[in-house]
Formats: sequence, C-alpha cells, structure tokens
Amino acid sequence: MSSMKERRALVEQAAAGMGMEVYEGTKAKETMPRLQYQKHSDKLVTLEEAIRKTGLKDGMTVSFHHHFRGGDKVVNMVIDKLAEMGFKDLHVAASSLQDVHRPLIEHIKNGVITQISTSGLRGELADEISRGLMEKPVVFRSHGARGSAIASGELHIDVAFLGASSCDPLGNACGYSRSANAKSICGSLGYALPDARYADKVVVLTDDLVDYPNTPNSISEHDVDYVVEVDSVGDSSKIASGAIRDTKNPRDILLAKQAAKVVINSGYFNDGFSMQTGSGGASLAVVKYIRESMIERGIKAKFALGGITAHMVKMHEEGLIERLIDVQSFDKVAAESMKNDRMHKEVAAYEYASAMEKGSATHYLDIVILSALEVDVNFNVNVLVGSDGIIRGAIGGHPDTAEDSALSVIVCPLLRGRIPCVVDEVTTLVTPGSTVDVVVTEHGIAVNPSRPEVAERLKAAGLKLVTLESLRDKALSIIGKPAPLPFGDKVVGVVLNRNGSVMDVIRNIADSGTDNKAKA
Amino acid sequence: MSSMKERRALVEQAAAGMGMEVYEGTKAKETMPRLQYQKHSDKLVTLEEAIRKTGLKDGMTVSFHHHFRGGDKVVNMVIDKLAEMGFKDLHVAASSLQDVHRPLIEHIKNGVITQISTSGLRGELADEISRGLMEKPVVFRSHGARGSAIASGELHIDVAFLGASSCDPLGNACGYSRSANAKSICGSLGYALPDARYADKVVVLTDDLVDYPNTPNSISEHDVDYVVEVDSVGDSSKIASGAIRDTKNPRDILLAKQAAKVVINSGYFNDGFSMQTGSGGASLAVVKYIRESMIERGIKAKFALGGITAHMVKMHEEGLIERLIDVQSFDKVAAESMKNDRMHKEVAAYEYASAMEKGSATHYLDIVILSALEVDVNFNVNVLVGSDGIIRGAIGGHPDTAEDSALSVIVCPLLRGRIPCVVDEVTTLVTPGSTVDVVVTEHGIAVNPSRPEVAERLKAAGLKLVTLESLRDKALSIIGKPAPLPFGDKVVGVVLNRNGSVMDVIRNIADSGTDNKAKA
Repeated sequence: MSSMKERRALVEQAAAGMGMEVYEGTKAKETMPRLQYQKHSDKLVTLEEAIRKTGLKDGMTVSFHHHFRGGDKVVNMVIDKLAEMGFKDLHVAASSLQDVHRPLIEHIKNGVITQISTSGLRGELADEISRGLMEKPVVFRSHGARGSAIASGELHIDVAFLGASSCDPLGNACGYSRSANAKSICGSLGYALPDARYADKVVVLTDDLVDYPNTPNSISEHDVDYVVEVDSVGDSSKIASGAIRDTKNPRDILLAKQAAKVVINSGYFNDGFSMQTGSGGASLAVVKYIRESMIERGIKAKFALGGITAHMVKMHEEGLIERLIDVQSFDKVAAESMKNDRMHKEVAAYEYASAMEKGSATHYLDIVILSALEVDVNFNVNVLVGSDGIIRGAIGGHPDTAEDSALSVIVCPLLRGRIPCVVDEVTTLVTPGSTVDVVVTEHGIAVNPSRPEVAERLKAAGLKLVTLESLRDKALSIIGKPAPLPFGDKVVGVVLNRNGSVMDVIRNIADSGTDNKAKA
Repeated sequence: MSSMKERRALVEQAAAGMGMEVYEGTKAKETMPRLQYQKHSDKLVTLEEAIRKTGLKDGMTVSFHHHFRGGDKVVNMVIDKLAEMGFKDLHVAASSLQDVHRPLIEHIKNGVITQISTSGLRGELADEISRGLMEKPVVFRSHGARGSAIASGELHIDVAFLGASSCDPLGNACGYSRSANAKSICGSLGYALPDARYADKVVVLTDDLVDYPNTPNSISEHDVDYVVEVDSVGDSSKIASGAIRDTKNPRDILLAKQAAKVVINSGYFNDGFSMQTGSGGASLAVVKYIRESMIERGIKAKFALGGITAHMVKMHEEGLIERLIDVQSFDKVAAESMKNDRMHKEVAAYEYASAMEKGSATHYLDIVILSALEVDVNFNVNVLVGSDGIIRGAIGGHPDTAEDSALSVIVCPLLRGRIPCVVDEVTTLVTPGSTVDVVVTEHGIAVNPSRPEVAERLKAAGLKLVTLESLRDKALSIIGKPAPLPFGDKVVGVVLNRNGSVMDVIRNIADSGTDNKAKA
C-alpha cells in the first residue's frame, strides 16, 4: 500500500491538473428521524419568501399557466402579492388569461403590470385592454409559438409561478392528486412544462402538499426551486366552462354533423388516422358523430391530440383511439384519465405544436376541426377579436393545427345574432387562409381552391359546396353592411405568427357602444 | 374596416418596435398522403449521416448509457464508425463501461479515444487501462455525480449516442417497445436522460423503429436531433448479468440474511420507509428476507429506489412497496414492469442521486444495502479497484446512497478466496467511511462509532457486533499480510467525490502477475 502522504500528493497533483478541488472529507451523518423528514424541505416556503428568494426584480417577466381556465386562482393570488410587495413594471407571460383575471386591471393602472404576453384575453380585462388600457401592446402567440419562444429564449421567463393539484416538498408536481386531501384537478400541465424547464426560477403553488415521492410526476423536482402551499390553486368545476363546455345548441349540433360528414368523406378518414378538435361547442361535438362512422367502418385512430375531452377518453377506452396526447385536459373526465391511464400522455406545448420542431405532434395530425369568430373570403380566420373590435378569444392552437394538419376544417355559423361570421376581411388575422382547407357553415361548405381533390371527394359524397363569397353575400343580404368599426390609432395588441413574425396588429376601439358580455 | 395598406404600415411599425420580422405569408399546404408519412422524418438518417450532421469534430465529447450492461452494442458500433470516419482524440463519457467494450482498447491505441469518463470499467479494457494504456487518467464519477456534472455543464457533452428499444421517426424513445417487432428491452433510460436533455446534439439508435407517436416516451422528440435504425442496440438477456445477477452463493445468502436482521432492527424499519439495494448478489438478495418481516409486522414501504429488481416488482405488485423509482432496471421483469405500471416511475440520474439537488430521491432514502470489494478499518469502501490494483468495478450509486440514506449497510465477506476484504486502508477510496453506518460480514457486524444508537438497537436484538479492526486481524491471521501492490508512478484513474472534488487517484499497476478474469 502507498503511504497516505504520497497518495495525497498525487490527489493534489491530479486536482490541479483538472482545475478541480481536493476532497476534504464528508461530515458524519446526523441521526435523522427520516420518516418525519418527508414533509420537510428547504424548498418549502411561503409565497412571499419564494418571491424574495427567486430574486425577482422590477421589470422582470413572470409566467403562469391557464389549465384551470375560468377557475384559476394562481394569477390573481401571485400578482396581488407582488403588488403588495411593491413590485412594478412586470411582464406577465401567461399561457392564457380569462374572465377571472379582471383584478389585473387595477394592477395595470397602478404600474405593477406594464406588459402582457398571452394566447388570449377575455372579459373585462380584454375590454379595457381593447379600449387602450396599456401603453405596450399585448403580444399574442399561439400555444405552439409560446412553447417555441420559451425554448428558444425569444420569450425569457425570469420566474414561473405554476399551480399544481399535488406537489411533494421537493417539487414533483402534477395536475392531479392521488392523496385523500385532493382539492383540485386540471389534468395535463402541458402549457406549464416549457416554463418549468426554461424559466430561471420556478415556484410551484399547490393546494395538496403530499409526501415524497409524488410519482409519476409532470413537473420534476429537478426544475423546481420553491414549493408554496396554498388554500386553492383553482376551481376544477370551471375547467370545462366557456369555450370548452359541451354544447346543446341545435345550430352547433347541425354544424358538428356537417363537419363530421366532411371529415368522413375527406380522404383522410382511414384506419390509423389522427385527429384533434379545438375549443368551441360545434368543433368539440364533431367527434361524437365521427365515432359512429368509425364503428361502422371498423376504423381506428392512431391518436387524438389536444384538448382532450370526455368523448375522446370514452373512445380511447372503447379501443377506437389508440393513444391520447394531451397538452390540456378539457374536462375532469380527461384529467382523471391522464392520472390513471398509461396511454394517455401529457406533452409540453413545444411537443404539441411547435413550428420549430419537426417532432411536434401537430406535424403528424391528419384532421383538425376548429371554430372561428370570423372567416373571410380568403379563408383567413380570426378567433381573437370580436367583430365589434373587442378582444374576446384566444389564439390557442388554432394556427398551429391548421397549418400542420393534413386537413383543417373550420366550423362557423353564418351569423351570430346580428353579427356576420363570413366576412370580406377578418378583423384580426390569426390563422392564414393558406392553411385552412374547409369551412363548414349551416348554409353550405366551402373548400379552399388550393385543395381541389378535397372538393372533388366532398362533391362525390353529395355534400353541397359553396363559395365563401356567396356566404358573405348571404350574410350581407340578411343583415346589411356593418358600419366600419371605430378603431383608434393606438396598437393594443400584436399577433405573432408561429414563426415569430408580426402578422397583425389590434388597434384600440374608441367606443363600441356596448359591453363585451352582451356580445360574447 | 381599415384598409390593407394602413394595416400593413401598422404591422411594419410594430415589428420594427419589437425587433421582429414582418409576416410574409404561409405557403399553401401540400396534399399529403399523411398515413404513409408516419414512417418518414428528416431526423431519420444512417449512423454516418447522423454523425456528419451533428458537426462532431476531433477532440469533442461523445456519450453513451449502459442500460444494456454486458449486452450493450451501441458503444462499439458507434466508436467503430467514428474510427472508420477518421475521428481522433475523442472523449468517451459513458455512464459505465463493461467487459463487452474490449474493442475500445484498439481505438485507444489508434488515438481515436484519448479520454474516458465513466462510473466503472471491467474486463480487458479495465486491465489494460490499469496497466497504463491511456495518457490521460480515466475520470470516475458516481451516477449522481455524473447527472449533476452534466446538468451543471462541468461535463459538457457534444454528441450523445443513446440506444433505445423503440423510437418513432421523430425521436420519442423508450427502453422498451410496444410493437410486435420488439427486439430488445432495458427498461429505465435514467442514465441517458441527462445526456438527452443537456447534450448539444442527440442521436437515438434504435432496433425497433415504430410509428409515431411512441408514447408514453422516456426521451422526448424535443431533445432528439437524429434517429438511426440499427439491427440491434443490445442483448437484453445480458442485463441481469455480472454484478447484478441473482445469487445462489451460500455465503451471499448468509450475508443477505444477516443484513436483513440489521435492517429490521436498525430503527429505520417502520411503516412508510424507503429502501434501495445496490448491485452484488448479497445486497440484491436482502430484500427477499426483508419481505417476510414486512408481511409479519404489517409494514409497507413508501418507495423502493434503484436499481429495481424482479423481487421489488413482486413486492410492489403485492402491495408491500407503494412506488418504484427506477433509474436502472436490473432485470427484464423490472423493465417490463416499468413499461406497464403507472406507479413504476423512471427518473433521470440527477433526480435519482444528485448531491447538488435537494430533491433527488437519495435524499429521501431511509435504508440502502450495498456491497464492497474492500472496507477498511475507517469504514471507507472501495467498489472500483481490486486488491490486486486492477480496476474491476463501478462506483455506481454507492457513495450517493451511502451519504444520503438514513442508514447505509455494507455487505462484504471477510475474504474472497485468498484476498482480504476488510483491510487497513482501501486500495481506492470510493465511499467515505463517514457515510457508512454498518458493515455486515459472515464473521460479525461492525457499526460505525458515529452511530452508537444503531449499535445499541442491534445489540438489543441479539446481533453480534465486532470491530473492523478485529475483522481485519482475523483476515490477516488466515492469509497473512499481503505484499504491497506493485504500483507505478502513472495516474491511470481519478476518483471524484459527489461534490466534484478529487477524492483519490488510481495508479498504474506495473505487473499483477495474473490476469483479471481469474480474480474477478
């Protein structure tokens, strides 16, 4: 054996050569009552402590997910605390914002928030912003574009505040809980995963702090800096609300049935196909009518993507859909399924719909059915700004799935009340017409002239094809030409394309003369 | 509505203000036979193309995982190809290297490989390196330390070559396959996950190219640049070979039974405890004997970590172990379980055992049972270098689990043939004695003086406690004092501590006079 002295000299020499430290011993173990240790961790702090420890400063970017949709409690809770602590000039980068985020209006007025990036805006906050509340325009990105922008660093997040329905003291977090104390469930945390991975600091807020290990986990402890226990992160009963509630509207059902016929006869309805349905009653309902035809013809789907709903879960459990790829659970049934079913896979926003990645799921999507606020005669779609010029929607995955799918089908009524939905030019360009293949209205089906083969197939199946121009004319003949909108000169919103370029701007509306809710 | 011209001007202005491009249109969709598209992807290339596309250059670092252990086919295949393509001066950063990697000797002699980082070395490659084959010393890290070093950038990987038992054309990869063409299975890809996430370029090699989407996936397409289809990535029958085969050795069984008594009476064997068993027949076997006591006393484990074995899977399925946390599947039963069981969770090396992360699983480990090549009178352990001075083992998670667990138990025979295992000073320091609590030999049990409360409990249970000095003396009395090893002056290996400091060096052995195999 070598002498200790000689050995030490060699260790010192090796360390110097490698630019490393020399080992100086490991302290003896403490006697730990290990089983009690499980509820403790240095990461476990109050919200205020977490904020301080992250080193957040005025002017920085904080981020949030919207998996609780209208039931979200995290955004308001955190921004209230940030305001109370005196922060100013913050950039809120949310995956989307909802009616429930009305309190942000005051925080904008007080200078706590000076910038917003989001997929969508709704309710009073959207109203106020449409009227010019903010100095800087809101930046709107699709879900895929947000994922790409975060991964590429284009959208840099300083601190992410992510709500979770369960989390252990180390940060292993889920959109569901397996404990008896479960208070909430939202299912997939797909829009939060880019933030968890790429934000400088990550704070998980949870209403069910569970024992380590909270496996299988969505967010990994590896990505989490602090864990904050709170009373509630969200009201799960409000997940399937608003744009993603199940429809009983007879016109929506008619549209859904027509869209199902389009899908079935499109040439893409073959064994092993894949599909997605976007938000909106009619588009969500299509899958119910496709199901019957799948059973009849013995056709099975390779995967359903989305935006997973109870209908899709049912079809998966029946063996009609092999796999579910879930970036957002659209209802509690879907959320529960993700918790328990090995083949119901959660994906991050960039795995779902990034334009920058060859591998994102939308690239393998055969059929998508989407809704619209407006479609224009060039097949351009607007899902963000009402025909009154007021922001009342969200880009979501609309342009991502329209562009990447083999067949994109838009379901859209001709009119909503006195408002035409087929127009000359969309109020705001969200999804370029070159990526939209078929528009289904209750007055006929229009196929993009760039897809003559699809038109042929639908005609052969006896479906009535019309032009968008004729639909526009029909709308005009019923309600007359609408007066031009009273837009001002201020840019209140900027719509980015999936590739990061600026596609459109939203100008302030001087005075719409009505309020948002009445028209929603 | 605004005029198009006016709108364009606003868009240009907004883009200029944000430093972004102006959207210039999306090209019309091509008509795609989408269902055929599923087997195609730009990522799908030959091994040679993948290597070229990664931009690999002489002097760079390439990495590999060892989940197929003795059955691995990826390291030799890739290094052969790199040699054929003329690469030189490469750094091979493998999670471990095995007997099967003997062909690397020639590549080292030819200058293709000039540096190795690994957890262990075995067989002829280890022999040659021990005798001074390489100019630069091999850098040995524990599994946790490798995970930390990759995450922190201390170990920068230029190109990772990762074998997978299934992969879709986009890069969603698993250590198992659900297809009818499955050729291999290794289960967890835990040691490959740091490489997948942090390497500059990632190439997945697979012997089962499956349709998209290969969900649920271990490695995500988000992290994969190229996918290469090959005949075989590994021989799964050799996973449970060498250091992790099931023992029938009577001495190992005796040691296992004694270790089980230690565990059961240690004070840490309580409902909700957690455990891990390291490689080596005796340590793996302990769990069988703990099982009976768990049933008797109605005790259940919160989780088992590791290094998951068929025994642990069985206990999990019986309800005795709530969750399995798997960084490496030690046999095919474990690999199959990970494929199908929602509560059998794969973790990355840094989630398993990083010293730099509060959240790694080892921090929550109550009991670990480990083996040793040598233990010295200061409880220091060597699992890397034989008493003949030749490298014949791997650090693995030994120092990680010993340090972080509440109770570390080492099982070790007094002698192996004519070689003493309890010695004055370990040939190579791998696990510091301050982190080792109990040493179990067939001649008695030694408890670290720093853990008097554990000694009291074991005495109270009637176990025979001895000192390591007395065991050393007993070994010496049987076989006499061994001659000093003929070490040379060249440093052939450097052992890093978990914190990245240099803990020990391995010097070349001038001539051991025997070959490695005879002593293994």
